[in-house]
Amino acid sequence: MTSDTWEFSGRNLTSRLLLGSGGVSSAAVLSACIAESGTDVVTVSMRRAGASATSGLLPAIQAAGVEVLPNTAGCRTAREAVLTAQLAREALRTDWVKLEVIADDRTLLPDVLELVDAAEQLVDDGFRVLPYTTDDLVVARRLRDVGCAAVMPLGSPIGSGLGIRNPHAIELICGEIELPVVLDAGLGTASDAALAMELGCSAVLLATAVTRAERPELMAAAMRDAVRAGRAAHDAGRIPRSSLARASSPTTGMVGR
Amino acid sequence: MTSDTWEFSGRNLTSRLLLGSGGVSSAAVLSACIAESGTDVVTVSMRRAGASATSGLLPAIQAAGVEVLPNTAGCRTAREAVLTAQLAREALRTDWVKLEVIADDRTLLPDVLELVDAAEQLVDDGFRVLPYTTDDLVVARRLRDVGCAAVMPLGSPIGSGLGIRNPHAIELICGEIELPVVLDAGLGTASDAALAMELGCSAVLLATAVTRAERPELMAAAMRDAVRAGRAAHDAGRIPRSSLARASSPTTGMVGR
Amino acid sequence: MTSDTWEFSGRNLTSRLLLGSGGVSSAAVLSACIAESGTDVVTVSMRRAGASATSGLLPAIQAAGVEVLPNTAGCRTAREAVLTAQLAREALRTDWVKLEVIADDRTLLPDVLELVDAAEQLVDDGFRVLPYTTDDLVVARRLRDVGCAAVMPLGSPIGSGLGIRNPHAIELICGEIELPVVLDAGLGTASDAALAMELGCSAVLLATAVTRAERPELMAAAMRDAVRAGRAAHDAGRIPRSSLARASSPTTGMVGR
Amino acid sequence: MTSDTWEFSGRNLTSRLLLGSGGVSSAAVLSACIAESGTDVVTVSMRRAGASATSGLLPAIQAAGVEVLPNTAGCRTAREAVLTAQLAREALRTDWVKLEVIADDRTLLPDVLELVDAAEQLVDDGFRVLPYTTDDLVVARRLRDVGCAAVMPLGSPIGSGLGIRNPHAIELICGEIELPVVLDAGLGTASDAALAMELGCSAVLLATAVTRAERPELMAAAMRDAVRAGRAAHDAGRIPRSSLARASSPTTGMVGR
Repeated sequence: MTSDTWEFSGRNLTSRLLLGSGGVSSAAVLSACIAESGTDVVTVSMRRAGASATSGLLPAIQAAGVEVLPNTAGCRTAREAVLTAQLAREALRTDWVKLEVIADDRTLLPDVLELVDAAEQLVDDGFRVLPYTTDDLVVARRLRDVGCAAVMPLGSPIGSGLGIRNPHAIELICGEIELPVVLDAGLGTASDAALAMELGCSAVLLATAVTRAERPELMAAAMRDAVRAGRAAHDAGRIPRSSLARASSPTTGMVGR
Repeated sequence: MTSDTWEFSGRNLTSRLLLGSGGVSSAAVLSACIAESGTDVVTVSMRRAGASATSGLLPAIQAAGVEVLPNTAGCRTAREAVLTAQLAREALRTDWVKLEVIADDRTLLPDVLELVDAAEQLVDDGFRVLPYTTDDLVVARRLRDVGCAAVMPLGSPIGSGLGIRNPHAIELICGEIELPVVLDAGLGTASDAALAMELGCSAVLLATAVTRAERPELMAAAMRDAVRAGRAAHDAGRIPRSSLARASSPTTGMVGR
Repeated sequence: MTSDTWEFSGRNLTSRLLLGSGGVSSAAVLSACIAESGTDVVTVSMRRAGASATSGLLPAIQAAGVEVLPNTAGCRTAREAVLTAQLAREALRTDWVKLEVIADDRTLLPDVLELVDAAEQLVDDGFRVLPYTTDDLVVARRLRDVGCAAVMPLGSPIGSGLGIRNPHAIELICGEIELPVVLDAGLGTASDAALAMELGCSAVLLATAVTRAERPELMAAAMRDAVRAGRAAHDAGRIPRSSLARASSPTTGMVGR
Repeated sequence: MTSDTWEFSGRNLTSRLLLGSGGVSSAAVLSACIAESGTDVVTVSMRRAGASATSGLLPAIQAAGVEVLPNTAGCRTAREAVLTAQLAREALRTDWVKLEVIADDRTLLPDVLELVDAAEQLVDDGFRVLPYTTDDLVVARRLRDVGCAAVMPLGSPIGSGLGIRNPHAIELICGEIELPVVLDAGLGTASDAALAMELGCSAVLLATAVTRAERPELMAAAMRDAVRAGRAAHDAGRIPRSSLARASSPTTGMVGR
């Protein structure tokens, strides 16, 4: 009942939890988090690739046997992001990229105009593009229409731990966009990840919720279970909400009254 | 990391998910749900004990090797509840009881005045009393003070699927009452169960969320994982919430800028 | 359209905002807040009656021409509260009392067992009893059944500013209890007060939200308008919520397409 | 204390409530709503200008002595919106326009890429542009940077009555964008309007919440008061939220203990 593979951007994955390496304190911690999380994919910022290599993050990821998903974290314009993606392709010999084009360092919010522009260029250049975006359904449609392989809306600002600020918006996206929808950014704890899956997301991507928890490995295990739980709950067909009680026990055939 | 036993009313349990049998469509479905949930304890209404026996629920629970926790569902007064608990003790040769004293059939809300009265009588009579109560901290203190073995506050009305309507109230109870706090009633889906554990509950008790889901077995598995996830997330020390973003990648040592 | 008198515990009031004097910095500020709020009733703690008299609060309230509602703030047992109410009756020559029986100084939460006991005694003694209680519908029924003149559930702990933590519970009370339901405690700002009225409350009682705001007089005016707004919105019959858009403009008869 | 004029797109307004005419059942109801709301501005869809003229809406608005704000409701592309705005300018001899470029009829969500394009063209053409947009701070910056006179983010989809789905996002916009921020779309009731003002919005624009309420005139009055209340509460400096109680009465100097 729990085995579940899914196709994501040309890969067959067994886990619906994607991990970011940002914020991790050491390669050893990252290795442990990867193992506990059960993830198949770890995303790495290419703009600190040198630092990552030096610090041993890339070797740790590769040693874990999971796939590296390069990202364009820190890029502010379509031009920067396209260049960074191209460098990543050469360095890592991979065809996919998590596309981030942020507006500023304070909010790290996506700049959707630059994002759509960059996505279009990268798709034309043969990439499988996985864009980090807002929870705007109409922008998600654009990203789909230019040929992205998924849409990755935020729950709340990166690293904020505020969870999913607008579940209604995420539900609208999941209900219409036929691509994989990956909740990316803002999650803080296990119930946030479960909720993302219950809303219909295909997967969850998170970094700081794990890497900056007091006990990163234990939070990685929590997130693994939460994503599985949310996925199963989504498929199991939850009971409807009702404003009054509904007896769980039959009221007929009672003894003693 | 995932093995975790805890003491509950004199039992050593391995699971923090307690299951109710209310609303289940057949003994076969109940058996499957017990297996998937990983639970150690199933609660059964004694006022339909005859019906349960007839329908084979009790044999199914006993065959599963889990412990039966009798409850006083449907009782409206302390007197009724005490009598029902005493009958349960004789019938099932057990010293514990999930104490329910409800006010009416429409809301199934606890009547806390009758509840405290019944709890006191049952403790005096040698029971280990597990009271289903509201999310009122002050009532929880009373139940503790009269000698209950746990407090079991509701998240929302029984069977409503509304989840935890007042997390703040549950958090206050968990932060002060040293007894096991078991979230009992109102949960609808996996993220609700995870949240209960993140707020500090020791365990979760649910029935209709599983038994009346479209696919009860799959929801049982979801709840098993959700409870584990919420517990681990609680122990792992989540990141703080902040209103602005916090970069997951270092902003120093970047290449390309 | 905006004139609206209502009966509350034998009085005909024109305002649905009741004001507390707790936390106010001076008699002059209190006078200004009373004027701006448009209230007809101000509640005063009898356990600091001496202090109130000294500081001039009571004279300020009486000079404003509004009615004084004594309260039993700080009482921990039914016995203390009954005694305090009786002293208030003699001192102020009034038949009503806002009944508070709190459990402790840290949470200031009502102790509903002591509360029901005290309410019963005071009703028997001829008081019009206005009990500060939790958001528990079943306790509200008890208070009604022993003869209280209203029920006054909390939104959240006194002075917390957390607003209405469980609107669903307040709605259940308003939907069933035929007495005036007055939201008492926890409100922080204007939208909280409007929400209370929209849920069906008859009135709102608040103190610190006004007296400890940076500009108490302006907040008093805000609360006056918010209560009126919420009451009118309740009566006006709001549009239903729908998960998708509903065009405000007709889509037929358009020009230009 | 309650007189408060503000500058909006070159006008000095006395009310912070802007009214839409969409959904109104008759010219007479619209006249009554305008009077009760106290608004200075009513927005009208230019794509049904013919219908509006026929049905007498425009004459009703003009007879009320309030200003007409033409909008481009129903436009799907920048080109359509620009053309519609230009027709409006000629027909109504006005320099401002509420710019709407929606993506589809089912969600009525703004298409922010088309929106920014249209805004830029209209600013260049000499319009004062008031764009209906999402709650995306980065898009709001773009609209400011191309020269819009305000930003008008949605609370939730038009006509949904879901209120403000993401208060955090609205707060971010109000905290950074120096232009008037007008909450536009999705509000259902008075507390929603008060909340918008408390978050820092300069004004609120709504249509169906009033025009489709059971009693439109009464809801117009409710919204008038709610906007005033929210504005005053914002300026009054609310008390902070705290997880525990804060006594409103001093605990020293008590009598009777």
